[in-house]
Amino acid sequence: MHTDNHRYERGLAKLREIDGEAGERVLQSLGDIAPDFARYLIEFPFGDMYSRPGLDLKSREIAVVAALTALGNAAPQLKVHIQGALNVGTTHTEIVETIMQMAVYAGFPAALNGLAAAKEVFAQEGTR
Amino acid sequence: MHTDNHRYERGLAKLREIDGEAGERVLQSLGDIAPDFARYLIEFPFGDMYSRPGLDLKSREIAVVAALTALGNAAPQLKVHIQGALNVGTTHTEIVETIMQMAVYAGFPAALNGLAAAKEVFAQEGTR
Amino acid sequence: MHTDNHRYERGLAKLREIDGEAGERVLQSLGDIAPDFARYLIEFPFGDMYSRPGLDLKSREIAVVAALTALGNAAPQLKVHIQGALNVGTTHTEIVETIMQMAVYAGFPAALNGLAAAKEVFAQEGTR
Amino acid sequence: MHTDNHRYERGLAKLREIDGEAGERVLQSLGDIAPDFARYLIEFPFGDMYSRPGLDLKSREIAVVAALTALGNAAPQLKVHIQGALNVGTTHTEIVETIMQMAVYAGFPAALNGLAAAKEVFAQEGTR
Amino acid sequence: MHTDNHRYERGLAKLREIDGEAGERVLQSLGDIAPDFARYLIEFPFGDMYSRPGLDLKSREIAVVAALTALGNAAPQLKVHIQGALNVGTTHTEIVETIMQMAVYAGFPAALNGLAAAKEVFAQEGTR
Amino acid sequence: MHTDNHRYERGLAKLREIDGEAGERVLQSLGDIAPDFARYLIEFPFGDMYSRPGLDLKSREIAVVAALTALGNAAPQLKVHIQGALNVGTTHTEIVETIMQMAVYAGFPAALNGLAAAKEVFAQEGTR
Repeated sequence: MHTDNHRYERGLAKLREIDGEAGERVLQSLGDIAPDFARYLIEFPFGDMYSRPGLDLKSREIAVVAALTALGNAAPQLKVHIQGALNVGTTHTEIVETIMQMAVYAGFPAALNGLAAAKEVFAQEGTR
Repeated sequence: MHTDNHRYERGLAKLREIDGEAGERVLQSLGDIAPDFARYLIEFPFGDMYSRPGLDLKSREIAVVAALTALGNAAPQLKVHIQGALNVGTTHTEIVETIMQMAVYAGFPAALNGLAAAKEVFAQEGTR
Repeated sequence: MHTDNHRYERGLAKLREIDGEAGERVLQSLGDIAPDFARYLIEFPFGDMYSRPGLDLKSREIAVVAALTALGNAAPQLKVHIQGALNVGTTHTEIVETIMQMAVYAGFPAALNGLAAAKEVFAQEGTR
Repeated sequence: MHTDNHRYERGLAKLREIDGEAGERVLQSLGDIAPDFARYLIEFPFGDMYSRPGLDLKSREIAVVAALTALGNAAPQLKVHIQGALNVGTTHTEIVETIMQMAVYAGFPAALNGLAAAKEVFAQEGTR
Repeated sequence: MHTDNHRYERGLAKLREIDGEAGERVLQSLGDIAPDFARYLIEFPFGDMYSRPGLDLKSREIAVVAALTALGNAAPQLKVHIQGALNVGTTHTEIVETIMQMAVYAGFPAALNGLAAAKEVFAQEGTR
Repeated sequence: MHTDNHRYERGLAKLREIDGEAGERVLQSLGDIAPDFARYLIEFPFGDMYSRPGLDLKSREIAVVAALTALGNAAPQLKVHIQGALNVGTTHTEIVETIMQMAVYAGFPAALNGLAAAKEVFAQEGTR
């Protein structure tokens, strides 16, 4: 039977696959202020959306990195998803190209700030 | 020798490949108000960015559809790029999934308006 | 047992309570392009968020009208939620005050466009 | 004595100088939904801000056309201020250059939609 | 007689009621760069808008917290208004619910960053 | 003959004229992650747009400071362009007036954050 419990477990596995440790930290940070929101985050974005067929995970992460670069107002989440894109097999080059492309659609400042975020994430890789 | 002329021609070919007739209409609409801007549009986005290796055209269009859906303030360009995504081989399903994914990152209204744009573009395909 | 089915039914009832006919039209418009998104719309915003205790429906609608006025890029949804605010007991004056307040936080154009949306919704009331 | 009345009259004169008939239409449209907001619009933007020394009216209108083009979510107000820029002595070329410049800071779609708005305003001039 | 002086005093009292010390700090920070803007801030948002009947202060603050969470580009002001919401009687739960609700209208990153701001403000309460 | 090389050199000279050392730092920061993007930044914004006749550099910088203040999501670039505005002859007062004007079009938080950026840039002038 298809229950919320199933959806939660599927979402948690997907969140760990994509976001890794950064995803766990987000969940923990919500624990004492909005625990239900941690549950929704697992269930809807990861249990529902990222678990859908029809678009591969790498393309989904390219879409998310593009959107968060363009919006330019969610730096912490952009970094989580640059790492997420790497986790699901996107190359450094593909991420940099996705962010550069945003100069055309959201302006050079958005792309410059996206590249700075990528630089930070790529640098942290080297230290792990 | 690498000249602006080369860049312009490469951009025009790329714009025709991706945007087709819609791209031509944008260029024409600029003719009597900002002809230089038509040239920049050919040269920088298409001659420079879309002509780069490192990220395939389909992924670039997924990134653009995602970003324009998330920004939610450029309906005409979103429609041009939904058609552009189809032109470079993105499936209807992949476009719909890209737009749905934006509900998580830019909210349900952004995704709903993106889906309405896709519906309009898909319907026009049937009448050509 | 708490199942997705329960969540769907709770969400559908809540969507009808808040959005009325406009909500039904949104669901129908999704039927042939993204039927799963209609289900998500029922389940997450209405089955999860609007069904929560801790903040009354009227305050939730004031929050939504404020946010959509401030964002300024989702006119159809703003109108649905101005009607939704009326449906759950918000007065015309309270809606107008909420929108006017946004001049301070998102500028006069956002507030002017929000007031135009309210005027349109209020006028349609008179013709039903 | 410096009273609100003085501020209102100074603002109304300034609004007429900058926005002309379009400004009157905005005030009238507010009459039956938010008459106090029409008063605030006269008093704060026009009675206070536009009446300040330290930056000439033409530069203020260039700033406003730039900002509304970049935000991309307030088409009616952008058109009013393109006309306003003309009214205070900005040339067609200066307006087009201001909007084109926004391609760098807010992306090509924002600039394209700004140019379309300018084209519409310039065309209406010819018919008066 | 209704003068600017009256409006200034009413605004200053309202700013102190809502924003408390944080409001004073904002005024002080403007003193050496834009003292007139401190006056406008007192007069228009607080002397005009917050002093209006027709919507209670708590609902106004819920609207502002919602809008600033959704816009996602004004973290300092969001924190001031989360504290402001508490100051006029909004509960911690109501603030958290308002912010969570924004996940639906502006995306999960906006809500996550809003919750992080709330967590910071709530923590500072404990240390005073 | 008009080549890309010419465009690059013209852009580099213009970038140095407007942005000074801050521009150099941006170019350097791109060196190890996206060197081509440094070249595009020189060529398109500075070699193409800022090098155009039809709008003086001071008005272009007023437009850019206005837009980045209104968007509110690109603090590093706003600071670079407040300095750039000073570099091309804009007065402190004109910059402050431009930013204050944005309270009307993008809200008080955008203007407050813009003024804080200006305060920081003006303070650094004193220490050089």
